[in-house]
Amino acid sequence: MLFTPIINRYFRPVLYGEILIGVICTITKFGTDFKSMSNKPSFGRSRVLLSNLKPQVDNGRFAVKRVEGEKLKVEVCLVADGHDVVAGALAFRQMGQKWQFVNLSHLGNDLFGAEISFPKKGNYEYKIQGWLDYALTWLHGLEKKYEDGQNVAVHMTDGKSHIAHLAKAGHEKATLLLNKMMEDAHASAAMALEGWLEEAFRAHPEKTFLSESAAFPLRVDRKKALYSSWYEFFPRSAAEEGHASFKEVEKLLPRVADLGFDVLYFPPIHPVGEVNRKGKNNATEAEVDDAGSPWAIGSALGGHKSVHPELGTLVDYKNLIKKANDLGLEIALDLAYQAAPDHPWVKEHPGWFKWRSDGTVQYAENPPKKYQDILPIYFESEDWEALWDELLAVILFWVEAGVKIFRVDNPHTKAINFWEWAIAETHKKDPDIIFLAEAFTKPALMKQLAKAGFTQGYTYYTWRNFRHELIEYMNELSQGDAAEYFRPNFWPNTPDILPYSLQSGNESIYLIRLFMAATLSSNYGVYGPVYEHLVHQAMPGKEEYFNSEKYEVQHWNWEVENKITWLMRLVNKVRKDNPALQQTRNYLTLNIENQSLYAYYKWEGESKMIMVVNLDPYSTQEGWLQLPLHHLGNKGPSYHFHDHSTGADYQWTEEWNYVRLDPALPFHLLELRS
Amino acid sequence: MLFTPIINRYFRPVLYGEILIGVICTITKFGTDFKSMSNKPSFGRSRVLLSNLKPQVDNGRFAVKRVEGEKLKVEVCLVADGHDVVAGALAFRQMGQKWQFVNLSHLGNDLFGAEISFPKKGNYEYKIQGWLDYALTWLHGLEKKYEDGQNVAVHMTDGKSHIAHLAKAGHEKATLLLNKMMEDAHASAAMALEGWLEEAFRAHPEKTFLSESAAFPLRVDRKKALYSSWYEFFPRSAAEEGHASFKEVEKLLPRVADLGFDVLYFPPIHPVGEVNRKGKNNATEAEVDDAGSPWAIGSALGGHKSVHPELGTLVDYKNLIKKANDLGLEIALDLAYQAAPDHPWVKEHPGWFKWRSDGTVQYAENPPKKYQDILPIYFESEDWEALWDELLAVILFWVEAGVKIFRVDNPHTKAINFWEWAIAETHKKDPDIIFLAEAFTKPALMKQLAKAGFTQGYTYYTWRNFRHELIEYMNELSQGDAAEYFRPNFWPNTPDILPYSLQSGNESIYLIRLFMAATLSSNYGVYGPVYEHLVHQAMPGKEEYFNSEKYEVQHWNWEVENKITWLMRLVNKVRKDNPALQQTRNYLTLNIENQSLYAYYKWEGESKMIMVVNLDPYSTQEGWLQLPLHHLGNKGPSYHFHDHSTGADYQWTEEWNYVRLDPALPFHLLELRS
Repeated sequence: MLFTPIINRYFRPVLYGEILIGVICTITKFGTDFKSMSNKPSFGRSRVLLSNLKPQVDNGRFAVKRVEGEKLKVEVCLVADGHDVVAGALAFRQMGQKWQFVNLSHLGNDLFGAEISFPKKGNYEYKIQGWLDYALTWLHGLEKKYEDGQNVAVHMTDGKSHIAHLAKAGHEKATLLLNKMMEDAHASAAMALEGWLEEAFRAHPEKTFLSESAAFPLRVDRKKALYSSWYEFFPRSAAEEGHASFKEVEKLLPRVADLGFDVLYFPPIHPVGEVNRKGKNNATEAEVDDAGSPWAIGSALGGHKSVHPELGTLVDYKNLIKKANDLGLEIALDLAYQAAPDHPWVKEHPGWFKWRSDGTVQYAENPPKKYQDILPIYFESEDWEALWDELLAVILFWVEAGVKIFRVDNPHTKAINFWEWAIAETHKKDPDIIFLAEAFTKPALMKQLAKAGFTQGYTYYTWRNFRHELIEYMNELSQGDAAEYFRPNFWPNTPDILPYSLQSGNESIYLIRLFMAATLSSNYGVYGPVYEHLVHQAMPGKEEYFNSEKYEVQHWNWEVENKITWLMRLVNKVRKDNPALQQTRNYLTLNIENQSLYAYYKWEGESKMIMVVNLDPYSTQEGWLQLPLHHLGNKGPSYHFHDHSTGADYQWTEEWNYVRLDPALPFHLLELRS
Repeated sequence: MLFTPIINRYFRPVLYGEILIGVICTITKFGTDFKSMSNKPSFGRSRVLLSNLKPQVDNGRFAVKRVEGEKLKVEVCLVADGHDVVAGALAFRQMGQKWQFVNLSHLGNDLFGAEISFPKKGNYEYKIQGWLDYALTWLHGLEKKYEDGQNVAVHMTDGKSHIAHLAKAGHEKATLLLNKMMEDAHASAAMALEGWLEEAFRAHPEKTFLSESAAFPLRVDRKKALYSSWYEFFPRSAAEEGHASFKEVEKLLPRVADLGFDVLYFPPIHPVGEVNRKGKNNATEAEVDDAGSPWAIGSALGGHKSVHPELGTLVDYKNLIKKANDLGLEIALDLAYQAAPDHPWVKEHPGWFKWRSDGTVQYAENPPKKYQDILPIYFESEDWEALWDELLAVILFWVEAGVKIFRVDNPHTKAINFWEWAIAETHKKDPDIIFLAEAFTKPALMKQLAKAGFTQGYTYYTWRNFRHELIEYMNELSQGDAAEYFRPNFWPNTPDILPYSLQSGNESIYLIRLFMAATLSSNYGVYGPVYEHLVHQAMPGKEEYFNSEKYEVQHWNWEVENKITWLMRLVNKVRKDNPALQQTRNYLTLNIENQSLYAYYKWEGESKMIMVVNLDPYSTQEGWLQLPLHHLGNKGPSYHFHDHSTGADYQWTEEWNYVRLDPALPFHLLELRS
């Protein structure tokens, strides 16, 4: 009884409870309360032990993430008592499909591994099998005895069953050998040792007394989950005057596409709350004509499933999405689960909000601060199941309308368990849906959101300015444990954050921050018009924009052309042409003998890029750069690099090479050409 | 249905299958096949997430190990959405007993921890609870609003339930506050903020919507599992002439006890096989009077439950054990599961051995080598369950006879699953039983044996001679993951191994190797008489003794007194008096400015020891030693060290101090005195 649920794991498809069990090939355990001496594990004769399977997230509790075509390298320790040959296989399958198997290679010191990729997106699982290969053990024994000149007659006969196994599998040469064995042991031994037999044994393993790990989940997303270029603006600011509508927004789509972005993200498009609406610069009292914050969602005009009338109708929005798609643009919806005091939910579902002992509703607060234009959702509500259903319904409503990407506002202030459930449910309807977590929060919480299923996450890049910070952070994101499930999205600014580094308005810094965002991380984004216009006036002492668009409609020169727009076109084009910049795990810091210069290398297959940045916006810096020769491979007498920033070409024949960068053009964007 | 087995984990005692589930506080997971939209996890309102629980072995598949009184420090990451106060507890219990709880302290950056120790030996389990502490959240909010001068009337009333919870628990001051609240909000707020309330809330947590990890196993052994001093000799060599019996062995007990050892280990004491018996120096043909290898077990005279007649009877052996115990000595039995060709098992249970196609039995072999005096046990036998029962019966037979320590011969050539089962079964009969794994094998296999339950294991110390090797190995053993379950036992030599380093016969090396074994590892042992006599003649080119006692009876001067015996007495005495040397995890390499000198620090509570060794047996070495000031604490103007090797006392007033060691006395054994 004790063993039933576990032993079954070896005989039926893995259930979810079981995939939590992790790498275990034996069941008896310390303290296990055997009913009687005869109560022994069913696999007493399985002698291979599995441990240290990588990658895995919390022992299979959460999924490792990849995108279509991306490689997954699995490693595991396989070991057994004695001297028999240990062998193993990596088994994987799309959920509900048949298992496929790839033999593991021995990487030394009992570490085994295999590398696979997944052509189709979806939910997969993988597990490890280990066994003692008695056929190979027998063959290696034969080889040693044969070379030692011993009589191998008995040894040959000892191996009969292994060769019969191949013959049964239809292996012709094995059948020949099987017959020959009876006549001439020595000659048949010679034949057995020709090499083909070892190959055949590996191709048709007997897998006797198999040991098997639990299965581990893997999610394979569409490519955009790993490679995307975001542009953000406030739709209501799209017009030359007044509050813009989606019609005016449509006119700007060609520009955004022409700049090379592929995701266009708008702050919330729902009716803006009127009760306690915020005024300009977050004033607690709004003027009559103040537009308010679009994040204060809901009014008599509707809630999370409605469109703000001044922007247009749901039909207008659907048309906008279609027109954008025709230009290769996807529209990302801002999913902000909070309610203005006049949101319909408050009347219809008071249980979804927290009420105080005096009968008033609980506003968002971080004592002593209060945010009276927003009510937080009460996730501990007695009525939580209906609440979850409605929140999910909101997502599915917009998926229905054509939305495939959600930028989620402050997900770290909502129950993480809800996200895990809602994202899984959404992916059942449409596996293409991408969720970007706007979670500027603690590392542990950022990671839990990614584990819960968020496709991408905002990062600390916004505040990483010094070379040592950038190197440490990039090593963590590209090599750390979280690299298996956390996909960074780098933003130099957002409507909420005008970082101190940009408050100088120095053009060179704007170039540096955008360039690094786009070349360090395969997912990046920028809060648009303010960036092209080098807007840098902040609320005194804060990292917030003065006259922020969050609280008022603004108007921009959408025709602006300058170094920033030039750089946007350049990096987006080079990213599109070079797979090395379409991923983030293949990152390597390069040595360069000047602390003001930051150089890094990224690669994917034959695509190899070297970036060099001058972090000093005020003076020219020069230094010597070391090429990663072991990565670049032998390219003959010299390495040919094309610099996309200037169009210049370099023939480098030495390992160390001179670089010089002026703040006016503070980077090299070098592609290795063969 | 899908959730049943897992959710139950939260409501009934943890079953063993479940402890494999690891650190999980939520159940819904990626891809989970919800039957319907209404199928949501039962704990939807639990918002605290647990991860990275340490220590744990393979996610709870195997037990962490401690001894009576030894500390266990548990750490875990607890995080939740939002800004509420996160709190947690470490729950632990002896199997079958009631859970005990210790609150976790916040160590910063969402890492929480607690340290406990276990007075009684046995099998334990521990788990983590995490919850949002709404009472503390409320109190901290009150504090901020109060300090901000806001009206706190409503806020006070909002907290009524939390104070009522305390009052209900019988907290008098809380009852007072409860009444006062109604009258005067401001005054009662002041009272609430006096500090006692926060204390009370922490002492009586409400644990609303609790999140809980799976339970992890912990084995607490008796102290000797961690601290033991072994001496080995061949009982048959105890006499002045001829084959000794246990009667003569008894005469040597006082000497071994006087040298300060507490475990006396004998090679196998069973009837030695006669078929294919090995001769002197492992000759394949034995002379008529050759004693053979005691590891070739079994003959017409009996098997693993019999005593070799020339040694005496079972009764003699039991008496020997009693006499040894009276002297504070335990007798360790050599458990060697292999059979001579004439072992009774071969006739009675042919199925427990492997038979070849020509009807002959399979000898131990490592092609092209053959070992014809030994048959390996066939662990894949059809009859494996009866085999396991008998092998366990052998252990229990000797436990019955009074044996409490087994030195297990080559456990890495027997099925590891068997060991895990047999050791667990043995501990059910007697939790005091200690198993030392003689596994000079690969790292991965060594670790699996320790996970399977072996109390101690032989190590690579025998071949770690250079300072960098010793430092790297000690860091691995004391700080690596395996430190949680692998207890090293250091041996400078064994009957199988005369390491090259000792083949010079240089006395200084014999002192160095013994000294380091005894002071680096709290478990250590030495293969006796040959060591005191500096026997160093090896089989040419091999690390084996020439005229090895393994194949012949020998005679020794058991009265020998020399530097080696002096050192044995010294280190065993100092080990007994200093807890720092009775454990192996508190190890720190010290800086010393001479590559030939090796200095290290060990500590346990107030016991603090510094060892300095001259690794160069041919010349005097001197250098400057850096004291670990942050460990030693402030001992006033100077540190007083007593050197047990010379009796000298040092008053060190500086961080760096001069040391000088002569090969004649190649070490300092410094105890910090206050």
